[in-house]
Amino acid sequence: MLKLNSSFRSLASRSLSTRQLFYEKRGKPEKVVQLRTIELADTLAPEEVLIEWQAAPINPADINQIQGTYALRPSLPAAAGLEGAARVSKIGSAVKSVKPGDQVLTSYDIPGTWTDFGIYDQKHLIKIDNDLPIEHAALFKVNPPSAYLMLKEYAQLNKGDWVVQNCANLAAGKQVIQIARILGFKTFNVIRNREDLRELVKEMKDMGADEVVTEEELYDKKKKIKMPRAKLALNGVGGKSSLYLATALERGGCMVTYGGMSRQPTQAPTAPLIFNDISLRGFWLMTWIRAQKDVSALQKMYADLSGWMKSGEIAPIPMVKRSLVEHKEALAEAQVKFDKKQVFFMKKQ
Amino acid sequence: MLKLNSSFRSLASRSLSTRQLFYEKRGKPEKVVQLRTIELADTLAPEEVLIEWQAAPINPADINQIQGTYALRPSLPAAAGLEGAARVSKIGSAVKSVKPGDQVLTSYDIPGTWTDFGIYDQKHLIKIDNDLPIEHAALFKVNPPSAYLMLKEYAQLNKGDWVVQNCANLAAGKQVIQIARILGFKTFNVIRNREDLRELVKEMKDMGADEVVTEEELYDKKKKIKMPRAKLALNGVGGKSSLYLATALERGGCMVTYGGMSRQPTQAPTAPLIFNDISLRGFWLMTWIRAQKDVSALQKMYADLSGWMKSGEIAPIPMVKRSLVEHKEALAEAQVKFDKKQVFFMKKQ
Repeated sequence: MLKLNSSFRSLASRSLSTRQLFYEKRGKPEKVVQLRTIELADTLAPEEVLIEWQAAPINPADINQIQGTYALRPSLPAAAGLEGAARVSKIGSAVKSVKPGDQVLTSYDIPGTWTDFGIYDQKHLIKIDNDLPIEHAALFKVNPPSAYLMLKEYAQLNKGDWVVQNCANLAAGKQVIQIARILGFKTFNVIRNREDLRELVKEMKDMGADEVVTEEELYDKKKKIKMPRAKLALNGVGGKSSLYLATALERGGCMVTYGGMSRQPTQAPTAPLIFNDISLRGFWLMTWIRAQKDVSALQKMYADLSGWMKSGEIAPIPMVKRSLVEHKEALAEAQVKFDKKQVFFMKKQ
Repeated sequence: MLKLNSSFRSLASRSLSTRQLFYEKRGKPEKVVQLRTIELADTLAPEEVLIEWQAAPINPADINQIQGTYALRPSLPAAAGLEGAARVSKIGSAVKSVKPGDQVLTSYDIPGTWTDFGIYDQKHLIKIDNDLPIEHAALFKVNPPSAYLMLKEYAQLNKGDWVVQNCANLAAGKQVIQIARILGFKTFNVIRNREDLRELVKEMKDMGADEVVTEEELYDKKKKIKMPRAKLALNGVGGKSSLYLATALERGGCMVTYGGMSRQPTQAPTAPLIFNDISLRGFWLMTWIRAQKDVSALQKMYADLSGWMKSGEIAPIPMVKRSLVEHKEALAEAQVKFDKKQVFFMKKQ
């Protein structure tokens, strides 16, 4: 296989080869995803930008999109990968928004991040802070904005207010804990029981979690766990877990569902729905992105998040660094091990 | 027992006896509710009004309040009955809002309608159309406004749009069918299977129901029942029934829960919550009433509903007329027979 590196870009008039993880049919990701080498066009149109991908994680949404169960179903064959960070290599003659060396993401609805190089119209690139370390930049696009928006858009929280959440030890949950801490909100975190529970609870408390309980403890009536009254509940699980979260909501409170790991319907107790005016909403980052008329809210969010990451207030998510050729192992592990992200790093680390 | 009738009111300086259904402890309604005779004050303060109750139904909320499971728990002993219609008998010297003979309801948060006479401050009386027949007036306070508001406040419906609902053959459901028909919306109605199904379906279709299916048909995959895409779902059941209703919601649609007859949590499928931005809300008439800053919205609603009732566009709900002394039988039947309302008529019919 051709080894690619950045020096390759200097071969200006020759076409550029890029490795790319793609799939020709939807199905089990570790079976259907293949690595191919393709040639990119050798010249850029005036509005086009050549970018070099640095790192790109495997998210649950990637798995679902490859399986065909995600809300967005690209036509086949499809380039895989929804999130990742790249650097600008070369720009077309009319490009003003970025310059070589800039760190960028690609638009939310364009997959194909698990690759070495790509050519995009400048309007499909999102410039982010050039100094944001790659460990943050690679995982910047999905979870941090989701956590940020869920904490800001569904309830008027004041400092000291509680937020309750389940699957709190997964990537999105950890972002919620940290951003809530920064914003002055308290978090009550529900997780599943596990062998190294004590270590995990310590890790989460170090991150800023105010309370951590297991679902088993929560469901055990003898334990008499009293959940705090909350204006906001964040649900990534569904089923019984969502029912318990919803019981913590105070008058007018909202439970926001962003995932359904249990594959059970989302549930809420009927009496508080009727008498306490609680509500159930769903969060999908795409819905929010599409609803933005101008980019200022997005830019403010990115600036806030970058600042907190660079200052260390938000810690990087633990990851396993993978090369593109390790895609089978990486995809298989991403579906069973949830405490570390599988992240493709395009160049040898 | 003293027989009361309207001539009694002329005994101006003597105190007035009234029969009253009340309870000293919460529990099984047919056990704990008792009939007593009490004396009312013999003079009215300047702001007070003496009213004579005409008719008052037994609602599920009455049953729950007597059982102690309702959101409002009056202190004991408590006068029973949340809904009903009365006529003004006599007014205090400063009363301007009503005059003798006017038809009135009492404020939503003041129980005690299962009685012959009552004295209220004028600010706790709601004047309604004097010409509204008693069969409508007695059942005017709860279900018609609930159906009206649920159809108006949670979705921007256009003529021809579908509304899906369960327990569609109960009183609230029938009001929804009729008001939706008047407003130009179509209804897809889910009911439980029963012996006289054909008759019931005919009755509902005559009322304006566009489609009527049983839950059993809906859950039977072989029947392949296709629910219409709807912006609004009205749920009085919960559990699996609510899950099915929610699947009919189109992007941005809302399921409004106003009851939980199945005693199961309210459910919704997770994917449409996340990706189609559907939401779940609850409806309680008290919440809406309390949120009104002025009475104009209430007055417009009452005028609309009275007009439709007087023109025959809304039919009276089938009822069993009961005297106050039949309270045990009436309360027992109200908990097992749902196709006719048990309604106390204070004077012999």
